[in-house]
Amino acid sequence: MSFNISVLGSEKADEKAVKAAEELGREIAHAGAVLVCGGRGGVMRAAAKGCKEAGGLTVGILPSLDKSQANEFLDVVLPTSMGYGRNIFVASAADVVVAVDGNYGTLSEVAFALNYGKPVIVLEGTGGTADFLKDSIYDIHSAKTPKEAVELAIKLIR
Amino acid sequence: MSFNISVLGSEKADEKAVKAAEELGREIAHAGAVLVCGGRGGVMRAAAKGCKEAGGLTVGILPSLDKSQANEFLDVVLPTSMGYGRNIFVASAADVVVAVDGNYGTLSEVAFALNYGKPVIVLEGTGGTADFLKDSIYDIHSAKTPKEAVELAIKLIR
Amino acid sequence: MSFNISVLGSEKADEKAVKAAEELGREIAHAGAVLVCGGRGGVMRAAAKGCKEAGGLTVGILPSLDKSQANEFLDVVLPTSMGYGRNIFVASAADVVVAVDGNYGTLSEVAFALNYGKPVIVLEGTGGTADFLKDSIYDIHSAKTPKEAVELAIKLIR
Amino acid sequence: MSFNISVLGSEKADEKAVKAAEELGREIAHAGAVLVCGGRGGVMRAAAKGCKEAGGLTVGILPSLDKSQANEFLDVVLPTSMGYGRNIFVASAADVVVAVDGNYGTLSEVAFALNYGKPVIVLEGTGGTADFLKDSIYDIHSAKTPKEAVELAIKLIR
Repeated sequence: MSFNISVLGSEKADEKAVKAAEELGREIAHAGAVLVCGGRGGVMRAAAKGCKEAGGLTVGILPSLDKSQANEFLDVVLPTSMGYGRNIFVASAADVVVAVDGNYGTLSEVAFALNYGKPVIVLEGTGGTADFLKDSIYDIHSAKTPKEAVELAIKLIR
Repeated sequence: MSFNISVLGSEKADEKAVKAAEELGREIAHAGAVLVCGGRGGVMRAAAKGCKEAGGLTVGILPSLDKSQANEFLDVVLPTSMGYGRNIFVASAADVVVAVDGNYGTLSEVAFALNYGKPVIVLEGTGGTADFLKDSIYDIHSAKTPKEAVELAIKLIR
Repeated sequence: MSFNISVLGSEKADEKAVKAAEELGREIAHAGAVLVCGGRGGVMRAAAKGCKEAGGLTVGILPSLDKSQANEFLDVVLPTSMGYGRNIFVASAADVVVAVDGNYGTLSEVAFALNYGKPVIVLEGTGGTADFLKDSIYDIHSAKTPKEAVELAIKLIR
Repeated sequence: MSFNISVLGSEKADEKAVKAAEELGREIAHAGAVLVCGGRGGVMRAAAKGCKEAGGLTVGILPSLDKSQANEFLDVVLPTSMGYGRNIFVASAADVVVAVDGNYGTLSEVAFALNYGKPVIVLEGTGGTADFLKDSIYDIHSAKTPKEAVELAIKLIR
């Protein structure tokens, strides 16, 4: 059976986060995992781009019914009508989640992943929620590079 | 962009419904659409089998976090933790839904598709919710064969 | 412990449905039950009005975060951000649901009540979804008057 | 119109958190607000107890359909069938949320409150998620006592 890695992160993302997300997407493709994301721009688009261009399968779960919000690198676009509530689906759909930068939305996805007993990895040095949660009271893993994050994800799934 | 056809129907399904669902899956693959379903057995498994074996892409949205509930013909398995509540995702994810037989779950997915403004097609003669809704007060389309259902679906999307 | 009766019905409702809903609300108050509804106008407002004016407790679960959508007869206004998805809460919150007229939204609430194993009562002669489901393939009760509906609801809870 | 204060916190709570939650419930009653909580034990039960005993109105939103999970101090018990997913409803239902101690569940409710643009107050010195978020990168308020928390909540609503 396929396994899924959800990449969490914001629509507004700086160059560093975008570059990291794209590399993360590529590594996910190389690992043979399915990329799941929130389907929109910024970190989500970059991760889908990296994964798609490396031959991987990409899934985007949108906050609204409007498919035109989807980025152009998704094989499967799944609209919802739950607004931020779709974040619980991005978390539950994952075998492991990896956070890149991010703000409130990413925090909610990490929190739901923890509730659901899914391993959480933050990509160090990308800022925002990812770095804030690196040293937290929660059971959170961290990785220094996208490659390391995906290797850790695979290990945590098995 | 890809378009999605959600096949609705029960885990408990007779031979006739299963056969129809499998053919529906095949036609969905031939049309180049993504098959979305509830991920479990019966009509869901048959539709995924038909689609997968004909080279299509198959997505299953599960009611629970337990991936072992998924049928074996899914390219993408998306667990949720919402029980029957996942039915609203099966509806919102679709560009068109097609109901085969079915009971309460199928009724809820049809109702949400209607709420979301998605076209609903019922496959005539398969019994259950599909036949009950054929002549209803709601705006529901019907088709006599799986092939006709998918042709109608494509027309309704465009 | 309190028990809840959810009144289902549309924002657009004719005089007959509004009158029936208001009487239903009154009977719910007399029975000592909590009225739950979708919080908006039409049938929802009429049921809340009847219940509130008869001294009952009224709860409205809104589709959006905008509390100004709530009708003026609610003791407790609970916004959601799930759009029609809030219908699954209106259903799950109930010990019994009673449908008055209604369209797609009401159909979705009835369907979820059935999924959740909650008794469903339709108020005969009010039109729409209520009358359509009166003679259906599903396990649905019907009542000729609001008073009869609430008496039946109380019996079904016990 | 009524306004709602959701009290967030765990089922497993130490004496200090329980005492603070009970006092918080009392202050919410005195302020004339409706108490919303997750409906179960620990912090949720203590807050409901304090509010109910001081004459306030208490609402509990349960993770499952099983009403026997509800604590005994709730005027309105609202079952859901979404598991931890009910946390998004505890957040959206609030005008302001106040966190007492807490773990993953509380983190998810805070995150959703932030997503929904609701003010978040943490009760200092109660440990767990509340103290972890006190000095964070997010827009979070803190209060030294339950009384101060409710006074701040009222100010933030207005």
